[in-house]
Amino acid sequence: MDPIADAPASMAAVQLNGHGGLDQLVYRTGVPTPRAGSGEVLVKVGACALNNTEINTRTGWYDRVVEDSVSEELGRSGRDDGAGATWNSTAMTFPRIQGASVAGTVVAVGDSADENLIGTRVVVDPSVRDPNLPPRAQIVEYLGGDRDGGFAEYVVVPAANAHVVNSELSDAELATFPCSYDTAEEMLARTGLAEGETVVITGAAGGVGTATIQLAQARGAQVIAIASSSKESRLRELSVDGFVSRSNSDLVAAVASLIGERGADVVIDVVGGTMFESLLLMLRRGGRYASAGAIGGPISRIDLRELIYKDLELYGITNPTPETFSRLVGLVDDGRIKPLVEAVFPLSQLREAQETLLKRTHIGKIVVIPDGA
Amino acid sequence: MDPIADAPASMAAVQLNGHGGLDQLVYRTGVPTPRAGSGEVLVKVGACALNNTEINTRTGWYDRVVEDSVSEELGRSGRDDGAGATWNSTAMTFPRIQGASVAGTVVAVGDSADENLIGTRVVVDPSVRDPNLPPRAQIVEYLGGDRDGGFAEYVVVPAANAHVVNSELSDAELATFPCSYDTAEEMLARTGLAEGETVVITGAAGGVGTATIQLAQARGAQVIAIASSSKESRLRELSVDGFVSRSNSDLVAAVASLIGERGADVVIDVVGGTMFESLLLMLRRGGRYASAGAIGGPISRIDLRELIYKDLELYGITNPTPETFSRLVGLVDDGRIKPLVEAVFPLSQLREAQETLLKRTHIGKIVVIPDGA
Repeated sequence: MDPIADAPASMAAVQLNGHGGLDQLVYRTGVPTPRAGSGEVLVKVGACALNNTEINTRTGWYDRVVEDSVSEELGRSGRDDGAGATWNSTAMTFPRIQGASVAGTVVAVGDSADENLIGTRVVVDPSVRDPNLPPRAQIVEYLGGDRDGGFAEYVVVPAANAHVVNSELSDAELATFPCSYDTAEEMLARTGLAEGETVVITGAAGGVGTATIQLAQARGAQVIAIASSSKESRLRELSVDGFVSRSNSDLVAAVASLIGERGADVVIDVVGGTMFESLLLMLRRGGRYASAGAIGGPISRIDLRELIYKDLELYGITNPTPETFSRLVGLVDDGRIKPLVEAVFPLSQLREAQETLLKRTHIGKIVVIPDGA
Repeated sequence: MDPIADAPASMAAVQLNGHGGLDQLVYRTGVPTPRAGSGEVLVKVGACALNNTEINTRTGWYDRVVEDSVSEELGRSGRDDGAGATWNSTAMTFPRIQGASVAGTVVAVGDSADENLIGTRVVVDPSVRDPNLPPRAQIVEYLGGDRDGGFAEYVVVPAANAHVVNSELSDAELATFPCSYDTAEEMLARTGLAEGETVVITGAAGGVGTATIQLAQARGAQVIAIASSSKESRLRELSVDGFVSRSNSDLVAAVASLIGERGADVVIDVVGGTMFESLLLMLRRGGRYASAGAIGGPISRIDLRELIYKDLELYGITNPTPETFSRLVGLVDDGRIKPLVEAVFPLSQLREAQETLLKRTHIGKIVVIPDGA
């Protein structure tokens, strides 16, 4: 069969033309619609949510490939080796269509992909894996970074990454889950957060943060949220058990006043930077820490005595497993996690959508949908 | 029965009178022989090996409780909070008999301890646990720090900590195993070092280092040792697969030249300090790091992007499990690990023995045996 039988020959998409500022993002029509290759499917994009990863990749934050001014605009410091530009240090090619968090409908399949997928509603696992690699190193491409993603009307993904969903939620709502929720669930799984334990969550108002709050609550854990004071009321609406302003001059004492001197069982972090040291101090003996980002800066100080003499475990997370994504889809199907859509923009206004994300005044996810959809 | 029926009323011991230099260690006779309480046994010390932990505790390295001059003499920096003086930040009381690594013979038992233990040869697990605490936080006392240890003719330990051995080895040889080998085995177990994997071991010539080499080889792993150049030939006698001088100006490149750019599966570290950052750079994606000490200094820099985007796992280890110690005793009974005795001193020359340890010119363990034994 013709893999693009049900799709037009060209489409609208936002292309990233190179590393740099928002002006590198250009909305175009007449972009050739991709074809599903062997084992792949063509997805008509219903919605695509925004993530920090698209900004990190655009600005070259993963490696210092753009001028300091851009990094400084973001309040972050770069690294010195300049080995690559994406999360896994491979060189990026342009133009690139970004967008990691896709929900939509399968409209065509390539050779050896299951034809029964055509017409199904799917959420897309953005992590393209090589199962022959070791467990924590299987991801070889990330959607929207190493291969074209969902800031377009159509996207091609491996059939194994297209998870069929049975849900009442809209595509815009479903698109909020990939990237944030699988990352959050992987952090909770790796740290083994258990019922009755206490977890401290930084960047709690962001996409990964709110995902972690919900998934931790689904595990029966007590949640202490750290975020900007301006987010407190909205986070309390999510029924967090405690809130601490990130600008508190003594985060360790503030958390201890809520949970006691014994310390937290788990910390889930996306901030890093100068907060990192305090987060280790908050943990009890035998506590666990996981990080999936360092929006407060990647370079931190560590007192190895905290690590050693409290028997801490630290996990870096960029490689959620397929099992984690499947577990997430199960939670969506069961209605156990709720989407948090902050705003929906047409695809042609992706720059404005990213500007809104960068203001950090929101809670939950910002989503784009193809114009006219 | 009288728990000290087979022991004299007083004994020789080295008492630590306070935090400070070697002059705080005083050899005395006429020290009251301890009595085995409920669930405890009295062990006639055959030998006690030296470890860095006794020096760390004496100098107050775990918390900055002695003047900087002592820390500087050791080339280490202290911490600022001064909350406590031992590995678990509890206050230390004096006089204290140090000594964590004991081999000897049970000569008496207290109430509710198994009388069949009397006369058996034992190696002592130095970690006194409360099994009601969470798994990585069960150790409530460490032999020679929180309770009197083996720098004496007799020592009282919980019966559960006295592991019966069936071995041809001398007490001096058996005393080399506790503390170093259980710590090393715990690090390998936590990082899951598997057959065919590559492990980089720092401080490879020290007690924990040589223990890790042997235990990693028992697991079928390839071993790259990092140590002072002066130790190279002696480490090669242990059949390491590669050696890198710790003074190499580019440790990452030196290790890569031996094992390839893919990186190491596991790093086992007791050095920390400025070496820490390089060690994370050596690890492959999905690699694991464990530390049980920071003899090169506790304060390090961490680039969280190494942690996050390589999906690293970092483990701090001070709480070996009882299962780990039992597994170690099994390896000793089976003759699968060999003791490395560098020198044997009489107990009365403990200061000289520690001076020898501090010279760091040795490989393997330094042991004291009671005078006249």
